[in-house]
Amino acid sequence: MKQATDSFISHISFLKGEVDKALRKLPLSREPDYLYKPMAYALKGQGKRLRPILLHLSGLTFKADPEALMKAGLAVELLHNFTLVHDDIMDSDELRHNQPAVHRKWDDATAILAGDGLFVLAQLLLCGLDAHIYRRFNEVTLLICQGQGLDKQYENDPAVNLKQYLEMISKKTGSLLGLCAELGGRLGSIEPEQIYKLYDYGLSLGLAFQIQDDILEIFGESKAMGKTLGSDMKSRKQTALTLLAREHDAKAWKKVNRLTVGMKNIEMLAMYRKYFESSGVYQEASELANKYINQAHDLLSVFPEPGRKNMMHFTNLILNRTF
Amino acid sequence: MKQATDSFISHISFLKGEVDKALRKLPLSREPDYLYKPMAYALKGQGKRLRPILLHLSGLTFKADPEALMKAGLAVELLHNFTLVHDDIMDSDELRHNQPAVHRKWDDATAILAGDGLFVLAQLLLCGLDAHIYRRFNEVTLLICQGQGLDKQYENDPAVNLKQYLEMISKKTGSLLGLCAELGGRLGSIEPEQIYKLYDYGLSLGLAFQIQDDILEIFGESKAMGKTLGSDMKSRKQTALTLLAREHDAKAWKKVNRLTVGMKNIEMLAMYRKYFESSGVYQEASELANKYINQAHDLLSVFPEPGRKNMMHFTNLILNRTF
Repeated sequence: MKQATDSFISHISFLKGEVDKALRKLPLSREPDYLYKPMAYALKGQGKRLRPILLHLSGLTFKADPEALMKAGLAVELLHNFTLVHDDIMDSDELRHNQPAVHRKWDDATAILAGDGLFVLAQLLLCGLDAHIYRRFNEVTLLICQGQGLDKQYENDPAVNLKQYLEMISKKTGSLLGLCAELGGRLGSIEPEQIYKLYDYGLSLGLAFQIQDDILEIFGESKAMGKTLGSDMKSRKQTALTLLAREHDAKAWKKVNRLTVGMKNIEMLAMYRKYFESSGVYQEASELANKYINQAHDLLSVFPEPGRKNMMHFTNLILNRTF
Repeated sequence: MKQATDSFISHISFLKGEVDKALRKLPLSREPDYLYKPMAYALKGQGKRLRPILLHLSGLTFKADPEALMKAGLAVELLHNFTLVHDDIMDSDELRHNQPAVHRKWDDATAILAGDGLFVLAQLLLCGLDAHIYRRFNEVTLLICQGQGLDKQYENDPAVNLKQYLEMISKKTGSLLGLCAELGGRLGSIEPEQIYKLYDYGLSLGLAFQIQDDILEIFGESKAMGKTLGSDMKSRKQTALTLLAREHDAKAWKKVNRLTVGMKNIEMLAMYRKYFESSGVYQEASELANKYINQAHDLLSVFPEPGRKNMMHFTNLILNRTF
């Protein structure tokens, strides 16, 4: 088992290296600088390239052509970075992968255009592939836009419930991972009636990942996460934890929020941790994450051996993190 | 001749009506409102729909399938509106078609997402068509992004010359009209080796249109233009006139600009008019516009009869305006 994991880790390191190499070969050293410099900057970040790696792993399982996998892999990575660049403007986020976000390094106008350019490049990469790849790519991009719209709409809506939140993260985060798993199969030899299972696998993975992220934002280790914890709470962002807390006991939850006003970060975090644990909210959120983890594991059966083993390792890698 | 023109005018009114009807049928009454309301608002503006009309006229000349022409026509109209919504944020323009721009009616974040959504819808409309349509659509979108990048880069660059300006408007304005003429042919029966002439026709039309626009901004009739003239000069925007003026006599041009500082709009406009006329810059700019008008007319021969007559009427309609 240990050996299998080691060889898997070197396999995905290799894939990441290939993706990074291909990203560097994109035609970005062109005029005008105003457009291309920020595009290159956005792609040079310390992204983990999880999406193209997932697409490759899924596709290799179905014996897809590696060249086609790289084109589609780059396209999803460009799509992902396009959404990050625009979302960072929309959410006034200043840092991305520990570097100034594009709109902070330059300005909003530059970042809007750079995002647009990344998205157009993604479309151009898909040109050589089958039309259904292109269709699914854009259908999912529309879902991502809907997800971002819901996120913005829910920002100041105290009545949002967990069901709505799950719809939002399904669209904003889950759909792209679903697309990655699906495109790998579509570029390979999967039976058409099995394709939806690939999407559902990626979707479950994404939901589990996001709910874990909400939990780690409060219960993780600050050092391992590489950021200050608790910023979601500070900005009153809705997360799986806060929505479960409100549904569990709206009055008590209101009281905790009132008590934390003006507190130092470390004290605030301690109070929220204590409340989430004592109220059972932490437990509930963990169970919710586990539900999607189990769904993802169940859906692994869609991948034929010997590739299924890699998909299992990948699933564990994503979901057993403490960072 | 008069009759032909009348029947042409009712033909394009009909086409505009069909485009508007099809735009209203796009799936925009959906959730979330945050995404879809601003998208619908952007499309409800008083646009002349010149681009889908051009695409239709070109395509009908080559006996293209009307349904395919409508899909491609809607896609170019959505692409056009996507660029307007984002450009208005980037350029801090407050009005579009006499209504508040999306980012003024809502805010920047909303307008960024609405633009993205319009562009994705455009891609989805192309899904049923041949892959080369989709490829050309995105190649030209990349040119438009480059053109906008050049425009922003040149904004504060006093050394920009006329050649650079022409490259910028070729990409930012000309390329989309080129695409419209080209896609009409590609969806119809044009010989492959003739396709570039369609693009060049639209490009020449776009260049002539933009240079005329620069001239009308100073020499047009305020009432017919539906706006206050001279705003380009006020914001020190580079136009064909200002670049020709600087190339003609940099010292004299600097002096005129110094003299107009603090002037009332009507006096400023009178002084610029006088200078452009007496220096021969107005004459030069008109000749430049005429060069592209003649190019467009020469390229009309690529369109077979009987459709060529419509293309001639369309060319005249675009280029003989006083508004």
